[in-house]
Amino acid sequence: MPTYTAPVKDMQFVLHDVLAISEAGIPGYEELDRDTTGAILEEAAKLAENVLAPLNRVGDEQGCVLENGVVRTPEGFKDAFDQMRDGGWTALDCDPEYGGQGLPYLMSTAVGEMFSSANMAFNMYQGLTHGAYNAIHAHGSEEQKATYLPKMVSCEWGGTMNLTEPHCGTDLGLIKTRAEPQEDGSYRITGSKIWISAGEHDMVDNIIHLVLAKIPGGPEGVKGISLFIVPKFMVNEDGSPGARNSLSCGGLEKKMGIHGNATCVMNYDGATGFLVGEAHKGMRAMFTMMNEARLGVGLQGFAQGAVAYENALGFARERQQGRAVTGTQMPEAPADTIMVHPDVRRNLMDQKSITEGARAFVYWGAMLIDKAHRAEDPDAEGLISLLTPVIKGFLTDKGFETCVLAQQTLGGSGFTREWGLEQFVRDARITMIYEGTNGIQSLDLVGRKLAADGGKHVMAFFDMVKRFIAENKGQDEAFDAQFLEPLKAASKDLQAAGMFFMQKGMKNPNDALSGSYDFMHLFGHVCLGFMHSRMALAATAALETGGDKAFLNAKLATGRYYMARQLPATKTHLARIESGAEPVMALDAEAF
Amino acid sequence: MPTYTAPVKDMQFVLHDVLAISEAGIPGYEELDRDTTGAILEEAAKLAENVLAPLNRVGDEQGCVLENGVVRTPEGFKDAFDQMRDGGWTALDCDPEYGGQGLPYLMSTAVGEMFSSANMAFNMYQGLTHGAYNAIHAHGSEEQKATYLPKMVSCEWGGTMNLTEPHCGTDLGLIKTRAEPQEDGSYRITGSKIWISAGEHDMVDNIIHLVLAKIPGGPEGVKGISLFIVPKFMVNEDGSPGARNSLSCGGLEKKMGIHGNATCVMNYDGATGFLVGEAHKGMRAMFTMMNEARLGVGLQGFAQGAVAYENALGFARERQQGRAVTGTQMPEAPADTIMVHPDVRRNLMDQKSITEGARAFVYWGAMLIDKAHRAEDPDAEGLISLLTPVIKGFLTDKGFETCVLAQQTLGGSGFTREWGLEQFVRDARITMIYEGTNGIQSLDLVGRKLAADGGKHVMAFFDMVKRFIAENKGQDEAFDAQFLEPLKAASKDLQAAGMFFMQKGMKNPNDALSGSYDFMHLFGHVCLGFMHSRMALAATAALETGGDKAFLNAKLATGRYYMARQLPATKTHLARIESGAEPVMALDAEAF
Repeated sequence: MPTYTAPVKDMQFVLHDVLAISEAGIPGYEELDRDTTGAILEEAAKLAENVLAPLNRVGDEQGCVLENGVVRTPEGFKDAFDQMRDGGWTALDCDPEYGGQGLPYLMSTAVGEMFSSANMAFNMYQGLTHGAYNAIHAHGSEEQKATYLPKMVSCEWGGTMNLTEPHCGTDLGLIKTRAEPQEDGSYRITGSKIWISAGEHDMVDNIIHLVLAKIPGGPEGVKGISLFIVPKFMVNEDGSPGARNSLSCGGLEKKMGIHGNATCVMNYDGATGFLVGEAHKGMRAMFTMMNEARLGVGLQGFAQGAVAYENALGFARERQQGRAVTGTQMPEAPADTIMVHPDVRRNLMDQKSITEGARAFVYWGAMLIDKAHRAEDPDAEGLISLLTPVIKGFLTDKGFETCVLAQQTLGGSGFTREWGLEQFVRDARITMIYEGTNGIQSLDLVGRKLAADGGKHVMAFFDMVKRFIAENKGQDEAFDAQFLEPLKAASKDLQAAGMFFMQKGMKNPNDALSGSYDFMHLFGHVCLGFMHSRMALAATAALETGGDKAFLNAKLATGRYYMARQLPATKTHLARIESGAEPVMALDAEAF
Repeated sequence: MPTYTAPVKDMQFVLHDVLAISEAGIPGYEELDRDTTGAILEEAAKLAENVLAPLNRVGDEQGCVLENGVVRTPEGFKDAFDQMRDGGWTALDCDPEYGGQGLPYLMSTAVGEMFSSANMAFNMYQGLTHGAYNAIHAHGSEEQKATYLPKMVSCEWGGTMNLTEPHCGTDLGLIKTRAEPQEDGSYRITGSKIWISAGEHDMVDNIIHLVLAKIPGGPEGVKGISLFIVPKFMVNEDGSPGARNSLSCGGLEKKMGIHGNATCVMNYDGATGFLVGEAHKGMRAMFTMMNEARLGVGLQGFAQGAVAYENALGFARERQQGRAVTGTQMPEAPADTIMVHPDVRRNLMDQKSITEGARAFVYWGAMLIDKAHRAEDPDAEGLISLLTPVIKGFLTDKGFETCVLAQQTLGGSGFTREWGLEQFVRDARITMIYEGTNGIQSLDLVGRKLAADGGKHVMAFFDMVKRFIAENKGQDEAFDAQFLEPLKAASKDLQAAGMFFMQKGMKNPNDALSGSYDFMHLFGHVCLGFMHSRMALAATAALETGGDKAFLNAKLATGRYYMARQLPATKTHLARIESGAEPVMALDAEAF
């Protein structure tokens, strides 16, 4: 059975040494000193380690069961959900007006890492509720907010997002679900939605579905989509759940992973729904939620990698097999531990350097979201909008890759269910797909975000990296050579790719779009190189003020590894990009 | 449900246009003209498509069940096994002296691709038997061969390989299974073996286990290992199965994939065994089998990729979502098919170019094995020994990657069990682990094969590529620029990596071993670049003599894609290699 020990020390390092959050000048951050965040994280760690992690295997083995329209979650889930709710964890960053604790999004991100590492399928129930909470909070009427939000903050009620239909996922303009206006101002919702996570389950008293539908007579395509609240139980005057609405779970999807989460077919048969915001503006309402939702999926991806790495490391430290090529290390044992073998190290260092870089990247992204919202900083908003597809696409690809690498560390044991690494691989796989496939993320990045506001945000990103290099070079030869120079080279590759898109993409957009996926990865590597450089600086500073030597030196070594061994991938991505559309588009569809 | 249509045309192209097998001068190849191989492949395709492929899902869903010591295979497996046996497919490349058909190994490789694509877990039952057949054929006594081989050729009896024990997989020197000599010349085998594929099942009348064990008093470590035949049922004088031997299946492993294959714990409780070959020379006997066994796993890896690609392509051709950015392609439909989107193309072309390159590489490897054995060519033997870890390690990594890419083509559907792509991913995953993990392959390549016979074989490889470039350049500008130049550059990267190992690895072997995995991939890319260049030449030649234009032009386009978009990976691998051991080995084991 895999174990989970929350990396609180690593988290604290990112929050305080790297991001220096309490001095960031973001409203709400001033209270987040080292002790406060430490206390929150330690408390969350207990729940993650002792309650959620032991249920991860249970959820995978038992899955969810649909009987007579009711979905039964795996044994122990309801009790754990109660504990999560009672501990106030579902309310962490919610609005105090509706019972939330009002902490920054960054803190719920750090806590979310733990919960996702411990039990991703389980944590999705509250994650989806939180997403629905966000949408209603941003776009609902005062009455809607008062009616639904307090119960969603506490997770007495759940929430869902209903977008996909059998014939359309990415291309939402094709949706067929209808919303017919009624005389009382409500709508009758009719249609079928698929892949609805947490669409029906037994851990809450009511489920508030957010449903995309078309009001007859509205504009064609995505411009005719509206967003509706469709509660499972209508809400009585006193706020209690009342009559059952005309909707039901029509089936559970059998899938590769996240078995503990109910993936539902949802049928709406003239169900009563309430318009959220303006008619035909449903997509806009969805889009405003997207940065957080996608960052959350990036978080899930690397969080699976993090727990997989932890277990691979534990195995490698115990497993004795072969001898070090440079001379026996443990003469008293029948063999050395596999930690002595360079290729095992290569594998573990790939896992470790990706995981630690990703953590810093996601936390920084969460901080930018707080800056955008709490400090109302439009530059932060622009930057995080640019980085969001990179966080989602790159970090879920790399998180999955980390799980596969970790599984490989265990050899044959990695393939068995007993050791649990294979579950991390299966669970992580969905993060590359949902909330917009990673291909769609790359399209969003290259087709939309790069040119947004006249390219202002990507220029600001380049300036930031350039400034960082200029400000820090010349003080330490080793740091210059090991960090700043590779960062500069990688950043140049990214700029060259952007330039290629500008020059070629104008004439033939396929020249840009054929390189979008590689551009997303190239961008991700530059970001992780930037993060590792910042971590190295922070570690050096902390070493000078008497910090934990072994811990901080490990940060430096991990950073050096990333810069030397991961960052050179930018060269290959650039070469792929610069080969343009011809090799990609050469074949007729029939000639494949 | 996924489908399978065997790519007979692609196979014939490799066999005849690229490898020109009937003119190769290898004994047995002279009969393999286009019609003959076509007839064999078409016949095999029927079995693969109509019998094996439909059972792939059944095997995954039902798995194997152990009850009272008996393993029940999934419904339909026994009947399919009978059909495979009755069709003579298990005897294809076996020795006619024991009832085999005596066809070259190359033909059983091409047929094996189909059977593996159609149902990998099923095909392992005969694959393991074939491996055991090989070992007895090469090292058994005349009496042993006469006793066991005819029934193994026909697969009336099965065979297994018993290496791994709970505390050792890679480091076989640690095995504890004992073989105590008896007065009658037999041995009493006692010990427990794990991960024994096809260790017990209901499709054969007897199972011939090949077991590695130590004879007490023998040398320490791997030098004290001997190989034994341990039949499930003792064989009567008349050749029929007799008394039950003291061995049993102690359990089935629950695992990520290949559920249709029984992965057994095998307990030997003083079972009667018979020494194969000389005492203490068991490892040598194993090693002689290794090239074929490992090539077979490389084949499995890419065969899973091939069928996954086929299904991804089928989906992409049907699925309508979004519009081409360069203008609507299907105005009559609500959306264009996703084939119009450059990033979908990028994904499919990666799958296609890897699969077709891998096929040519494996078939060429099989031809080298035939050349080594049938033409007794020591250079072919040396070359295939060098290439074997590349075929196994690189092609299983790439085969798995292809399955993951194919799954991604389907978006959310790829994650569901219904579409079956996720099974290909789960099944393919084992190929990176068994028959020596891919890390071990890279160690074999860099630590053993590179320097074998004074480095003669790697020099011969470089010469071959150089000669190919010299012989073909200057005749077609486009071919030079699109194929020969990238091949030359990639080959230079490989040489530079080899040079780095020579210079640094002498002083510190970790400098070489830290780069072994990247070297294996770098080597693999050069091989696939070489294969695509040869395919392009062959396609051009066939076009001149009036071949199928669309088919051959697609070969050229696929090759161009590989050279432009896959081959640049060599740069990144070289950079990783040249960063040496320092970043890899910097951390103490405790500091991770």
